[in-house]
Amino acid sequence: MALPIYLLSDFGTRDEFVAVVKGVILSLEPSARLLDLSHDIPPFDLCKGAVVLAAALPHLPPGLGLAVVDPGVGTGRRAVLLRCGRGDLLLGPDNGLLLPAAARLGGVEAAWSVEEEELFRRPAHPTFHGRDIFAPVAARLASGMEPREVGPEMDPGSLEAAPWEEPVVAEGAVFCRVIDIDRFGNLRLSAGPGCLGGASAGQEVLVDLGERQFTARLLGTFGEAEPGEALLYEDSSGWLGLALREGNLAERLGARPLQFAALYLEGGLS
Amino acid sequence: MALPIYLLSDFGTRDEFVAVVKGVILSLEPSARLLDLSHDIPPFDLCKGAVVLAAALPHLPPGLGLAVVDPGVGTGRRAVLLRCGRGDLLLGPDNGLLLPAAARLGGVEAAWSVEEEELFRRPAHPTFHGRDIFAPVAARLASGMEPREVGPEMDPGSLEAAPWEEPVVAEGAVFCRVIDIDRFGNLRLSAGPGCLGGASAGQEVLVDLGERQFTARLLGTFGEAEPGEALLYEDSSGWLGLALREGNLAERLGARPLQFAALYLEGGLS
Amino acid sequence: MALPIYLLSDFGTRDEFVAVVKGVILSLEPSARLLDLSHDIPPFDLCKGAVVLAAALPHLPPGLGLAVVDPGVGTGRRAVLLRCGRGDLLLGPDNGLLLPAAARLGGVEAAWSVEEEELFRRPAHPTFHGRDIFAPVAARLASGMEPREVGPEMDPGSLEAAPWEEPVVAEGAVFCRVIDIDRFGNLRLSAGPGCLGGASAGQEVLVDLGERQFTARLLGTFGEAEPGEALLYEDSSGWLGLALREGNLAERLGARPLQFAALYLEGGLS
Repeated sequence: MALPIYLLSDFGTRDEFVAVVKGVILSLEPSARLLDLSHDIPPFDLCKGAVVLAAALPHLPPGLGLAVVDPGVGTGRRAVLLRCGRGDLLLGPDNGLLLPAAARLGGVEAAWSVEEEELFRRPAHPTFHGRDIFAPVAARLASGMEPREVGPEMDPGSLEAAPWEEPVVAEGAVFCRVIDIDRFGNLRLSAGPGCLGGASAGQEVLVDLGERQFTARLLGTFGEAEPGEALLYEDSSGWLGLALREGNLAERLGARPLQFAALYLEGGLS
Repeated sequence: MALPIYLLSDFGTRDEFVAVVKGVILSLEPSARLLDLSHDIPPFDLCKGAVVLAAALPHLPPGLGLAVVDPGVGTGRRAVLLRCGRGDLLLGPDNGLLLPAAARLGGVEAAWSVEEEELFRRPAHPTFHGRDIFAPVAARLASGMEPREVGPEMDPGSLEAAPWEEPVVAEGAVFCRVIDIDRFGNLRLSAGPGCLGGASAGQEVLVDLGERQFTARLLGTFGEAEPGEALLYEDSSGWLGLALREGNLAERLGARPLQFAALYLEGGLS
Repeated sequence: MALPIYLLSDFGTRDEFVAVVKGVILSLEPSARLLDLSHDIPPFDLCKGAVVLAAALPHLPPGLGLAVVDPGVGTGRRAVLLRCGRGDLLLGPDNGLLLPAAARLGGVEAAWSVEEEELFRRPAHPTFHGRDIFAPVAARLASGMEPREVGPEMDPGSLEAAPWEEPVVAEGAVFCRVIDIDRFGNLRLSAGPGCLGGASAGQEVLVDLGERQFTARLLGTFGEAEPGEALLYEDSSGWLGLALREGNLAERLGARPLQFAALYLEGGLS
């Protein structure tokens, strides 16, 4: 049975781009099983694309993640194929988009530079590699083509970096970034709850977002906060979240993705 | 063959939530047949969710409706499973969301409180019961699990009320609510054409929305109205609709869901 | 195997309309294979609908395109079924929506007026022919019903015209229209690169949009332009495009669909 293909892009849903990518895949592999993760990633927003990919794929059966958020399309950036520890394949531009997902799928076990032009729709249009390079390669991988057929193996260490760096944990403080704002106005941070060490439920944390500082309580659920109170919690995808009970925190703060965030714990981290 | 699963939520399409729910279902039941009703219900908008569910499901083959618009997630609200007269199952929070659909699917024949934690993904995250409670229960129901295995049967009379009450029909007047505003700016009312008794085509109706009063003609089609004229009509889902021919009535009026609407018929209802 | 059905509409994704159309199809043909092209065509925007249909279908396996952007629903406009040279069927209102796609699928080989009321859901609601006329007819066509069973054959020459006329090529100039603005703010023109004759890469072109005139270079890729420079290029779907490198040209210009565009080549067209 063909490997399921999980699609993510910033193509939106008003234009023909998503349908065209699916059409190319289905023309080559009529039995392809396609599942949309999201096509509403804001244009060129690598960070949001990487977050959604990393948050979604671990819950799906192993498959082929095809992700296209590609500000560098038409320049010399590489296309890459990654094989992850869990068995998933990830295909997309070499711009860091795939790495947070790979880390959650058992890490990058092997990487290939996608260069085998025989596999492409040619001439590849300079603005639509999704159609001309990624879709035909994805269709063939779903049909059982070996990863090494896409091009030369490469050193995973030479891949472009993820959209955000690892958080830094210092005495009594965590330095990280806002990596996502969801539709409810909740913020996701690049740090996980492990960064808080032995901080205890109910503890107050000083949050410093640069222009704005405020106090949030470390809580397990929204229901434990007072209406209008800010809380810090482990969100459903394993990152730390910041929210306002019954409110939109991101709007209140004017928060932006990739903004720095520092968390200071009273009494320090244990 | 697995029961088809019809998905409705306020999760939006920019975040990973919908894909995660589908992933959990497909991991447990790889042959699940999933169809999206809408994931663009505005956050926490029970009324809109209930309208779309009730308007869509009667046109689909009997299946399992999984609906998650859940302002009370993480509080003590129950999760419920309903079996309807037509044979459909409805799964979601006990907050009234499912009831208008159930009424159109032959009524609630039986109800169960979803409590069997063995079925859940544990520990259930307090903000994402869609993933941890509803998705695994839905997958198993689609695979043929008996409804009674989800938890104790409950009295349908003890379910939380629907987002809107039944319309009141008095002499020459109908008191109801605006329950929906569609993308064309048309209003849906909680009353059906039966509430108008023997009112005749072309008759003028005084519409009172509180701040705004206006006259609409009772017509069968948009084409019978003059450009810019307001009309009252049976909309495609069986509710009464209010529209402006070639215009956006909701914008013109500043109409809001759940706003009261009174319809007064010249000469009274026959 | 049932013919795949490709769905396009201006129904949006917040209301029940798309699910209802799919429900009617699946009720009649449970094995129907449905693929969404877009349901986010702006309300009544025939031009955008025609662009997306024409840009998407040539990349999909031959099938049945069901397109509903229908400002004339409920008036006397005809419903039509077209068979194209490539073998595709196109079903929708007779308002020009289907014609640009048909032209790219080998042209209209035959056309039928959809009138056979036995096939409809009756009484057809005056505002929802998508559900009551198009969906049941599509389901039956996908199941193998002969096109001629929908109603009398008609002269393709009597079909309503496409939303835009053919471009006019004169000495040193091309007169066309803006037919689309994509989510990145790029403009699509109704002219293809063939209209530019022997214009050479790098050549400057004077673009006149009425209120605004500017110069764009004819380039093969975005990467060849300077940041902030306007470029004219063959876009991924074969039309000419106008874009601003690393910018949103449509916003900058206040561009509107169907706006006239004239391209003047220095030295004329060769």
